[in-house]
Amino acid sequence: MINYSHGKGDLENWIISEEAFQPDTLGKSEAIMYLGNGYMGLRSATEEPYMKEVRNLFVSGTFNKAEENEVTELPNLADVTRLDIRVDGDRFSLEFGKTKEYIKQLNIKTAELRRYFVWTSPKGKVLQFEFKRFVSLNNLHLIGMKMCVKSLSDPVQISFDTGIDAQMSNSGSQHFLEGERRIFDKKEILLVQTTNESKIDVVINSTHKITVNNVERIDEPEMNMTRRKVWLTYDFNLQPNDKLEVEKLTTVYTSRDKDQDNAGYTIEQLREKSLNDLRNCSMQGYDSLFHSHKEAWNKSIWNSYALEIDSENPYDQLALRFSQYHLTIMAPAHDERMGIAAKGLSGEGYKGHSFWDTEIFILPFFTFSNPKVAKSLLTYRYYVLEGARKKAFENGYSGAMYPWESAWPTDGEVTPKLGDIDIVTGEQTRIWSGFIEQHISADIAFAVYQYFNVTADQEFMNHYGYEMIFETASFWASRLEWNEVKQEYHINNVIGPDEYKEHVNNNAFTNYMAFFNLKLAIRYYVTLMKENSSLIEKLTIKLDLETAYQTWQTKAEKIYLPQPREEDLVIPQDDTYLSLKEIDLTKYKKQEKLRTIYRDYNPEQINNLQVTKQADTLLLFYLLQQTFLQEDIHLSTSIKEANFYYYEAKTLHDSSLSLATHSILANDIGDTELAYSLFRKSTEVDLGPRMNTSDDGIHAASTGGIWKATIFGFAGLRLVDGKLRINPKLPKQWNHMKFTIYWQGQPITLFLTATTLSIKVENKKKIEFEIYGQHYECDDVLKIDFEYQN
Amino acid sequence: MINYSHGKGDLENWIISEEAFQPDTLGKSEAIMYLGNGYMGLRSATEEPYMKEVRNLFVSGTFNKAEENEVTELPNLADVTRLDIRVDGDRFSLEFGKTKEYIKQLNIKTAELRRYFVWTSPKGKVLQFEFKRFVSLNNLHLIGMKMCVKSLSDPVQISFDTGIDAQMSNSGSQHFLEGERRIFDKKEILLVQTTNESKIDVVINSTHKITVNNVERIDEPEMNMTRRKVWLTYDFNLQPNDKLEVEKLTTVYTSRDKDQDNAGYTIEQLREKSLNDLRNCSMQGYDSLFHSHKEAWNKSIWNSYALEIDSENPYDQLALRFSQYHLTIMAPAHDERMGIAAKGLSGEGYKGHSFWDTEIFILPFFTFSNPKVAKSLLTYRYYVLEGARKKAFENGYSGAMYPWESAWPTDGEVTPKLGDIDIVTGEQTRIWSGFIEQHISADIAFAVYQYFNVTADQEFMNHYGYEMIFETASFWASRLEWNEVKQEYHINNVIGPDEYKEHVNNNAFTNYMAFFNLKLAIRYYVTLMKENSSLIEKLTIKLDLETAYQTWQTKAEKIYLPQPREEDLVIPQDDTYLSLKEIDLTKYKKQEKLRTIYRDYNPEQINNLQVTKQADTLLLFYLLQQTFLQEDIHLSTSIKEANFYYYEAKTLHDSSLSLATHSILANDIGDTELAYSLFRKSTEVDLGPRMNTSDDGIHAASTGGIWKATIFGFAGLRLVDGKLRINPKLPKQWNHMKFTIYWQGQPITLFLTATTLSIKVENKKKIEFEIYGQHYECDDVLKIDFEYQN
Repeated sequence: MINYSHGKGDLENWIISEEAFQPDTLGKSEAIMYLGNGYMGLRSATEEPYMKEVRNLFVSGTFNKAEENEVTELPNLADVTRLDIRVDGDRFSLEFGKTKEYIKQLNIKTAELRRYFVWTSPKGKVLQFEFKRFVSLNNLHLIGMKMCVKSLSDPVQISFDTGIDAQMSNSGSQHFLEGERRIFDKKEILLVQTTNESKIDVVINSTHKITVNNVERIDEPEMNMTRRKVWLTYDFNLQPNDKLEVEKLTTVYTSRDKDQDNAGYTIEQLREKSLNDLRNCSMQGYDSLFHSHKEAWNKSIWNSYALEIDSENPYDQLALRFSQYHLTIMAPAHDERMGIAAKGLSGEGYKGHSFWDTEIFILPFFTFSNPKVAKSLLTYRYYVLEGARKKAFENGYSGAMYPWESAWPTDGEVTPKLGDIDIVTGEQTRIWSGFIEQHISADIAFAVYQYFNVTADQEFMNHYGYEMIFETASFWASRLEWNEVKQEYHINNVIGPDEYKEHVNNNAFTNYMAFFNLKLAIRYYVTLMKENSSLIEKLTIKLDLETAYQTWQTKAEKIYLPQPREEDLVIPQDDTYLSLKEIDLTKYKKQEKLRTIYRDYNPEQINNLQVTKQADTLLLFYLLQQTFLQEDIHLSTSIKEANFYYYEAKTLHDSSLSLATHSILANDIGDTELAYSLFRKSTEVDLGPRMNTSDDGIHAASTGGIWKATIFGFAGLRLVDGKLRINPKLPKQWNHMKFTIYWQGQPITLFLTATTLSIKVENKKKIEFEIYGQHYECDDVLKIDFEYQN
Repeated sequence: MINYSHGKGDLENWIISEEAFQPDTLGKSEAIMYLGNGYMGLRSATEEPYMKEVRNLFVSGTFNKAEENEVTELPNLADVTRLDIRVDGDRFSLEFGKTKEYIKQLNIKTAELRRYFVWTSPKGKVLQFEFKRFVSLNNLHLIGMKMCVKSLSDPVQISFDTGIDAQMSNSGSQHFLEGERRIFDKKEILLVQTTNESKIDVVINSTHKITVNNVERIDEPEMNMTRRKVWLTYDFNLQPNDKLEVEKLTTVYTSRDKDQDNAGYTIEQLREKSLNDLRNCSMQGYDSLFHSHKEAWNKSIWNSYALEIDSENPYDQLALRFSQYHLTIMAPAHDERMGIAAKGLSGEGYKGHSFWDTEIFILPFFTFSNPKVAKSLLTYRYYVLEGARKKAFENGYSGAMYPWESAWPTDGEVTPKLGDIDIVTGEQTRIWSGFIEQHISADIAFAVYQYFNVTADQEFMNHYGYEMIFETASFWASRLEWNEVKQEYHINNVIGPDEYKEHVNNNAFTNYMAFFNLKLAIRYYVTLMKENSSLIEKLTIKLDLETAYQTWQTKAEKIYLPQPREEDLVIPQDDTYLSLKEIDLTKYKKQEKLRTIYRDYNPEQINNLQVTKQADTLLLFYLLQQTFLQEDIHLSTSIKEANFYYYEAKTLHDSSLSLATHSILANDIGDTELAYSLFRKSTEVDLGPRMNTSDDGIHAASTGGIWKATIFGFAGLRLVDGKLRINPKLPKQWNHMKFTIYWQGQPITLFLTATTLSIKVENKKKIEFEIYGQHYECDDVLKIDFEYQN
């Protein structure tokens, strides 16, 4: 059971706790309490092992293809966290004996994991255990661990094995060649691994400091080595109230680490760096290292984002902090050759691949809160252009066709081809997304557009952004299919965001986003022709823009854009959706687990029902409201409402991407109670009571969604035709909220109540914005009263 | 704790039992109770999983090199034995609740594993469990399992997951590409695997039959699939005394299976064979299949070997049966392209490789008891000639230099190059055996000689044997190093059987065996020239025998053969051994675990002490007594005694190969009490009270040693210069013994007491033999009285 401590004082609404040990649902706390710093992610499996545990340590960007018939993925590194503890010779486990005062908690403020309990062994000895752990934010290579054991009753013998274990795998797939193992000075352990295909070297060093009653012990441990594993065995006899403290510090370096020329360090260099770092850290010790880490979190994250929610439900504030915590630790901000994985760095799910999740659900947080990170993530997509061009070429298209799933930039498409069981045939299902889920190219173009408008980062556009827009536009131009009968361009045989519909024609989302992409390219081309002829010349040489521009213009105008039906204003999700069979979805809408519909129908059957996995057509009302749709179709509230209620009823939210978008739209159409309820549900994707939802890892897009529903939904912040619009609609449970965003290079801080907005422009550079149709300017501080308007 | 049930009636001395469940020492019963049939070996891990379990399923000959920097090994196949059982929704485990009447036992007679207990769940429900399992001897591809559960108290919900799990690895090294997974008809499971380097396909099918109170249930299970894994989940509500029975049958086929032209079946063929076989088996059901299996054991093994020991310690009889059981299940009698692994098919230790263990310690059992299997195993070595010639060539030698470790015949040398930790440097130790432990070539020649003399199988010799003898002789001839000073040939820089001495010159065992090998080649060449000129012509063309013969003759005479020292008659183990430092070995002679000397000394230090891992020089007195040694040196009892007591004191028996040899020699020199004590110790290598000795697998050579110490030691059977010699010396604890051996093509049965031998020549073809110097002939039945002579 996961609890959310409302805490006291400094820790109020900063703590997520598990207050009972449940060996059958370890995945929940392992994932949602995972530690990381963007460089690496360490799943919070307990020190002592359990049957259903999943131990994971991932380092961003270390992609490897374990076997010839697999796709590349983030490999699970050697484990350093496991401690095999014996009490009087018997294995210590919370599945035996009696446990009192158990708590496992993540302190979000300090990004420290802590576990505490008093345990009575089956033989009746009473011991107090405390474990602490952090993955340093200021030293990206450092993992700190601490164990403290006290016997509260009798003399007791405590022994434990501690080492580095490279027998780990990704659910059985082994990524690493067995490498060097060594123990220096009966204290420092070295293990070297090399990925078997991408040949990335990983050097891991661990060292130990042991004190009893604060006096350092220099007992010689037993040294052990076996296949892929090296460890020390320590053995202590404790008297009642003796305090045994074990500090284990670990450094992790890989040849993916950025050096000056991106050539990658040699194993020898990595060995030296890792061991030197370890020895330096060892001189400081856990407490001092943790102090620096805590300060880094305070300064770079909490003081900088300054997001405050004063809610009747203090959990709301915690959920937002949870969101920012995870968005921070999942982002490889240190290296623009790396993207964000769909599960962050918290589990094997989705193999560490980047999806449209980043651009549509996660990136807005960074674009508005930490544009440097947003830039790094979009630069990653610029590097992925190489793979995207390759994919376009292989499929007979022009320009850049972004891979549905991306790993290392040059990998190209890495979506697996087979999935879970088909309950009708008993075979594995086919996964079509890598072939026909194509909207991602437009999604990335949209993210570039959003980033540029919010940050005004012209340099990024000149170096990367324009090229991405032009190349994706060229892809769409080549992708369009001329329909002779209707005299318009169609996009046939795709999967839209609703992955329960495969091989559909004219998915509204895809068609509109492709149209957006083409129009954006046209607009930028025209602007650049006027304003930066040297750049346009350069790009023209590289991309043959003159011809491309002609094609964009001709084709954009003739794309078929599905219009609202006359009778009910519903925009058809695709050519056939509205004519498919409707079934009673109550059972699935109320489901305790996700995707239970697969227990009754196979993909082919689901394809023929009016049932939607996740927000699809509705996404358009959120993404494109502010740009082209207004020019082309009348997006009155009644259309929005008609579509919202039609599709919401058919949407199972079987993807974690979905709820936040529907929350924003519910708010847009004035259904604030539903909006708040959907927001709460979106926070529960990971933080909720369903204990198995996060087994494969947390839902990165959903953590972005929590922030989005708050800022774009309740605070009503939106980019409308390149301008800042703020139409706040706080839920009635919220007294006020406060947050800092970056707008065109400067931080601005907003304080909102139900009817007032106070704004502070930190660098005193004038900004313009609109609130419920009223235009404002401000270069310092301003307080505005407003009324809700729908 | 392992117990040896003396049993009752039919089962007297046929049962090995574990009478208390000990989760920390699972390896013992997993290994010594493993099931197999030479085609495959299934480690006896329990159905429900435990932390320290090792699940293994090996199929002989399916060697694969998992990663480029590893050596080839027998891969651990997908697991079919694990059942994840839940009682009222909670994981079932004997680590929780209360267990009564627990017994896990291997019935050696029927080769069936059984586990029974009454378990009270933590919530107070009382259940009775029984599990049975066999690996069929008459259908090499079949694994049968049965689970029977009864609730003795309350209504109870039992659910369980059962499937095929290919997330298995060899201590983290993954050998298999993820293959097809499928469920047919919600009942039959298919999993296909392909080794990632050798590209061997494995097809595994499992099916289930479930009855409650003997009525078949056709409940539809939940079907599940995840990475490398496919399974069914069944769920039943039982009333008190309802009996749930689950039969799970599994068939295993691989593309290594012999077809007509050894080309290997295609996956499609294997799928068809496997599924057809499964469906046929399924129609018969567990009980009927088990009956056929039991009959096969009775007929082919127990009635055929007919080995009986009437001892004061009934355990002795059991130990001999244990030995024959394991010798049977480890031997891939079905395919002469396969050898016996050092751990049989019971664990990952030694990677499924064949060592000299086979020829010197295991093969004699087959040569004397089941010559067809011996022929198959020696034919394997004939196929290995290809790798042996390659190794000789690569090392600059002629002829065939047998690999120290062999896998697939064409693999050549497969010994790993790095071992466990060096306690001084903290690094991995170097393993030199693959380079310089060279006696194996002569050991194999010796085994051919022994096989030929015992079986008179001239056809084998003509096809395979002579070529093996000639080629190994040519290797030795090229290997010898001329010492100009001493005017003799030396063999420098080797490891003898005593692996605690690396890089020694003139290891006595190696030099004598090389001499034997050369003399044998000379003898066979001369005989063949006289008796089979067409064969000698054929071989001469292939092997350039004329030149070779000249070289053998010249060099054999000048090999340095270390002689007994004048002062104490001790033959130096090598050039330096007798001058090395002696230390007090008491601590290590009394050790509870093996190789504890490595905790105090590293290999370099051990190399400089008079301490021996295992029988080395002493082996000569057992192997070569009957041939050349008698001609060349005076092997009086006093020399034998002097060497025995000198080296036995220095031998830690840190190899399982050692004790049986010393037992035989102790008997030879009349120390019958020591002989019996060493015999008992040799049986305890696996069957003894030290619970961790078999973790990596049983000791194949040691199970051969138990038989050897009995037959060559106590029964005094020996091949002396090609003739059968029987000098019995029964331990005082034994009243009589009886056994059947094959001598030159016909079975002869011997019945021994302390002073009499009764012999029955089954096919009435006259045989000759010698007892304590007396010559006998017999073509029917004979009873002889004798007296002990030393």
